[in-house]
Amino acid sequence: MIKLNLVEPSRENFAPFGDLITLDGAEHFPINQGSTERFHALSKVDVGDEGGKPIISLFRGKAFHLPFKLRVMERHPLGSQSFIPVTTSLTNQYLVIVAPATCQTEEEITQNLHAFLVKGFRGVTYAKGVWHHPLISLDEEQDFIVVDRSGPGNNCDEISITQEITVAN
Amino acid sequence: MIKLNLVEPSRENFAPFGDLITLDGAEHFPINQGSTERFHALSKVDVGDEGGKPIISLFRGKAFHLPFKLRVMERHPLGSQSFIPVTTSLTNQYLVIVAPATCQTEEEITQNLHAFLVKGFRGVTYAKGVWHHPLISLDEEQDFIVVDRSGPGNNCDEISITQEITVAN
Repeated sequence: MIKLNLVEPSRENFAPFGDLITLDGAEHFPINQGSTERFHALSKVDVGDEGGKPIISLFRGKAFHLPFKLRVMERHPLGSQSFIPVTTSLTNQYLVIVAPATCQTEEEITQNLHAFLVKGFRGVTYAKGVWHHPLISLDEEQDFIVVDRSGPGNNCDEISITQEITVAN
Repeated sequence: MIKLNLVEPSRENFAPFGDLITLDGAEHFPINQGSTERFHALSKVDVGDEGGKPIISLFRGKAFHLPFKLRVMERHPLGSQSFIPVTTSLTNQYLVIVAPATCQTEEEITQNLHAFLVKGFRGVTYAKGVWHHPLISLDEEQDFIVVDRSGPGNNCDEISITQEITVAN
């Protein structure tokens, strides 16, 4: 049995898996004659492979609770997928569980898991091919703006996790 | 002097200018073994011309108040631009002032203006080349997720509005 500890994400520790979307440390500058501040390019969107196009959707995620048992991981080999919480609350939180895109088997995935507790208005972009758990809103239902790929081809690999793995605070 | 009246946007009346981003009437279906509801493809993103790539940014718009005097319109000839308010409030509101992409002069623009009052969690995508006023948050500062184009080339045309045009409720 493996117990995964939760880590607070930063731009640096999340970089191997994609982009942490946050205003902290973001490049920003005034536009529109000073009436708007642009926090620029918080995340790339990388969905053009094999004729893919970006689309904007909304995911409404049911509430999960800690401790959380891992049963499945997935990845999108043809494109990035960005999640941005629709919230102004500083206390809402969700889980992000990832493994490097280079993993090929359950064993490689489970030996390279990282679990992040993301709080408030912070989003994540999973880079193309990065293994991740489907959306895990904590404590209450949450809405996320999602930017991902629409287009031809198989863009979802899924793998069952049979090892006993628990995420706890 | 022209007084523009405010209209509530719908998918239909906004279609000539782009996409109204709303959960009302959106296609949706369960994913992730039923733990997530996906409100699918609320908007297209059309930024690929001349090597453009999509990026995710955040715009923080200062508060404006009605009546509003129009002084400038702009358009992005190489790509769409999507605005999604980061709010769970039903009462926040912002203005959207548009004119068709086919307009070439101030006179054509001012004779074809449409003004929308957008309330709550609803976004808009300005289609490529559609004339629009820069962000107009009403009554309070507001944050918007913005998906637009990064890349080479001139992607902003701006035109001063010298005619006296006022938007009022």
